[in-house]
Amino acid sequence: MLTGRNLIRASDLNEQEVGLVLKNADSFMEVLKRKVKKVPTLRGKTIANIFFEPSTRTRNSFELAAKRLSADLVNFSASSSALKKGESIMDTIETIISLKLNLLVVRHGHSGVMDFISGKVGIPLINAGDGKNQHPTQALLDTYTIKQKFGSLQGLKVALVGDFLNSRVARSNVEMFSRMGMEVIVVAPSMLLPEDYSVLGTDILSDIDQVIDQVDVLYMLRMQFERQNRRFYPSIREYNRFLGLDRKRLNNMKKDSVVMHPGPVNRGIEISEEVMDSRDSKDRILISNQVTHGVAVRMSLLYLILSQQEEP
Amino acid sequence: MLTGRNLIRASDLNEQEVGLVLKNADSFMEVLKRKVKKVPTLRGKTIANIFFEPSTRTRNSFELAAKRLSADLVNFSASSSALKKGESIMDTIETIISLKLNLLVVRHGHSGVMDFISGKVGIPLINAGDGKNQHPTQALLDTYTIKQKFGSLQGLKVALVGDFLNSRVARSNVEMFSRMGMEVIVVAPSMLLPEDYSVLGTDILSDIDQVIDQVDVLYMLRMQFERQNRRFYPSIREYNRFLGLDRKRLNNMKKDSVVMHPGPVNRGIEISEEVMDSRDSKDRILISNQVTHGVAVRMSLLYLILSQQEEP
Amino acid sequence: MLTGRNLIRASDLNEQEVGLVLKNADSFMEVLKRKVKKVPTLRGKTIANIFFEPSTRTRNSFELAAKRLSADLVNFSASSSALKKGESIMDTIETIISLKLNLLVVRHGHSGVMDFISGKVGIPLINAGDGKNQHPTQALLDTYTIKQKFGSLQGLKVALVGDFLNSRVARSNVEMFSRMGMEVIVVAPSMLLPEDYSVLGTDILSDIDQVIDQVDVLYMLRMQFERQNRRFYPSIREYNRFLGLDRKRLNNMKKDSVVMHPGPVNRGIEISEEVMDSRDSKDRILISNQVTHGVAVRMSLLYLILSQQEEP
Repeated sequence: MLTGRNLIRASDLNEQEVGLVLKNADSFMEVLKRKVKKVPTLRGKTIANIFFEPSTRTRNSFELAAKRLSADLVNFSASSSALKKGESIMDTIETIISLKLNLLVVRHGHSGVMDFISGKVGIPLINAGDGKNQHPTQALLDTYTIKQKFGSLQGLKVALVGDFLNSRVARSNVEMFSRMGMEVIVVAPSMLLPEDYSVLGTDILSDIDQVIDQVDVLYMLRMQFERQNRRFYPSIREYNRFLGLDRKRLNNMKKDSVVMHPGPVNRGIEISEEVMDSRDSKDRILISNQVTHGVAVRMSLLYLILSQQEEP
Repeated sequence: MLTGRNLIRASDLNEQEVGLVLKNADSFMEVLKRKVKKVPTLRGKTIANIFFEPSTRTRNSFELAAKRLSADLVNFSASSSALKKGESIMDTIETIISLKLNLLVVRHGHSGVMDFISGKVGIPLINAGDGKNQHPTQALLDTYTIKQKFGSLQGLKVALVGDFLNSRVARSNVEMFSRMGMEVIVVAPSMLLPEDYSVLGTDILSDIDQVIDQVDVLYMLRMQFERQNRRFYPSIREYNRFLGLDRKRLNNMKKDSVVMHPGPVNRGIEISEEVMDSRDSKDRILISNQVTHGVAVRMSLLYLILSQQEEP
Repeated sequence: MLTGRNLIRASDLNEQEVGLVLKNADSFMEVLKRKVKKVPTLRGKTIANIFFEPSTRTRNSFELAAKRLSADLVNFSASSSALKKGESIMDTIETIISLKLNLLVVRHGHSGVMDFISGKVGIPLINAGDGKNQHPTQALLDTYTIKQKFGSLQGLKVALVGDFLNSRVARSNVEMFSRMGMEVIVVAPSMLLPEDYSVLGTDILSDIDQVIDQVDVLYMLRMQFERQNRRFYPSIREYNRFLGLDRKRLNNMKKDSVVMHPGPVNRGIEISEEVMDSRDSKDRILISNQVTHGVAVRMSLLYLILSQQEEP
């Protein structure tokens, strides 16, 4: 169990703990195939979804996970909240705490705000994305998706491709994939790569073609236009040329290799329309599977953190 | 049963199928009169309300219908969704599908988008209003309201009055009312009438007074100011003169005739303040009944589509 | 029981009825300490949260209270509602009524709108704040918080301090505290005091230091910047000097006295940062307790109004 634990960054979980989340996710995948997709496990627990940034997939994934465990879920969003009245984040959080909830799921635009919050509150906190920093439940669901496909993770070759500068998914995935025994290759031009990646011990390449015929998993990062303050590097045409996945590149990949993306895809930029909509490579594009697994993995995580929890 | 079926336009249901929805709605009206207004019929099913346009009555009516059948309901709205990140409708829909939901209720500003969506997804879709095109559950609840009042539908004379150009309710109602054996009369000036109504085989008049003393049901359409790109035709004064319902016109109607409107009413335009607030004609203005019946009819529809559904 | 009753202003409840709400709140505080914080009391009832103004704490407090009684809750907000289509408040309310709900919780920016609504609808209405007028459930939870702390209310000395002109909390609290036998002292400069307070029979002072060493409860009102149309009176520096709570003033208070605030606090204005964050006076600052008690008190109120209710 992970009773009462926080999940702020991918490295908060060791190899055994990640394994535990994935194993329990298997059971919850079974629940999701049943006619009645619901278990009474967390009845009477209340989970708060606190999103200071808009989100469809992550927010709804947590909402569904909570409801399918029979927990109550309350949605807070910045736009409808007292933040309009000039309330500080901490006062908002303290109010939420005083409502005697059991767990907070928080997304926020600023890196590092999670440590600040978790240091003050006495209930578990799951980071649903903080700025350009971390998105650890994405790493869990991606790891689960790879395990489901290949059976074992050990020794698999994974290339992450694209905008590492603005990606919280990249940071969490590089950490977790490495920890679980995969060989991680970073593919990014230096302009889209933060300095601290050089110390992670992974290979760093700038051209997707140097590695595309060798990888088991090609993980395309989303161009985070909404987090960029400057003009797009270097141009969409250039991006495509060195980093984009089109039909030709797909054909160069190993037969049993797969393509992943955290979504939503910028069609024609990270992945071409043709690849997105092709019938014959459908089984190798795992984007939908990632979303499906997200619910089961989050059910697993909520279960492991909350089911044995003493009352706050 | 209507297991696994879509409802995109009124004509998707034949006479027997409409009858089935109405008959089951009777049972659900009984549930709504109970102390505990809830049945466990759809426990463990998840329904998504996906509204790309704002809505109070339809969105909440579906939400209540779902909850009273013990289904879980997840609300998606355009403003909080990933659409802000430039995600395409199809990617949004595909994400939602991957969350393993059982049914989508969709409202969208563009006519015809429903066929596009339903062609791609493998779960039932109910159109909760698409542009100026169709609003079939409104037609069902209106038909139910008329049946409740008159016992039988066959041969009833119904005049729909107003802005057919911008009304999705009009199109769905004309189709369904005709199919169920009612005599439908269209009352609209040519400027507010799309060309394709001429082929529907209904009478078309331009002055409400030509027919007001003969109808069993006077169905006032809403002036859809928010869907008009041009100045109001021809003027509110003119509209009132030829198409508005005031006390004098109400007095000219048959004693047991009724007035309906899909809501919200533009008071003083389609219906005068005096008629809206009059005590003595209260039983003949069925606007509140339509809202009440909406929940029961939508419960019936969700039940008929989902209760026997195999898992997606 | 308070079956079928409205709660629009604090004076709607007599002393015995307030006592009844507080007594039942004790039982619900017990529920909130259980592992499964949920009772089936209001299963099958539906409550609508209708907020024409944004709110975090009150809206979520009612939502949690409803869910923990197993009622269904539907959230309406002005921004997503048909009000955008030019629908009148009354038409919105009538729609909601026709959905066969059991109780309305309403917040609105205009004083007095509650009487208008409750006069028209046939189901109970709870005022969750109307303009500068009343916020009676805040008064209930504040009274409960004081009773929890001191055991009895009779004869306690309470000073309310600050902006009475713009505060609905002040009006409800002065009424209810007086009714329950507490001695109420109003501390406000004449510019922040409406004329009608002079007839309430309470002492009125303009300087917090005249009374701070004598009170059992110091109730700091929130400066309602968002409800002020003019420049802040007379300046934040002046406000602090005559009305703000800092460490020095806290030290002048009686040892077993407490500080309350309806939240969110404007740090550095009503209460200094130092007092807010101090460890040693933590047990005397009851702001978090107020929030916690809010859920139990609202559960109690909903239970007393709805559990014996006949169907509308």
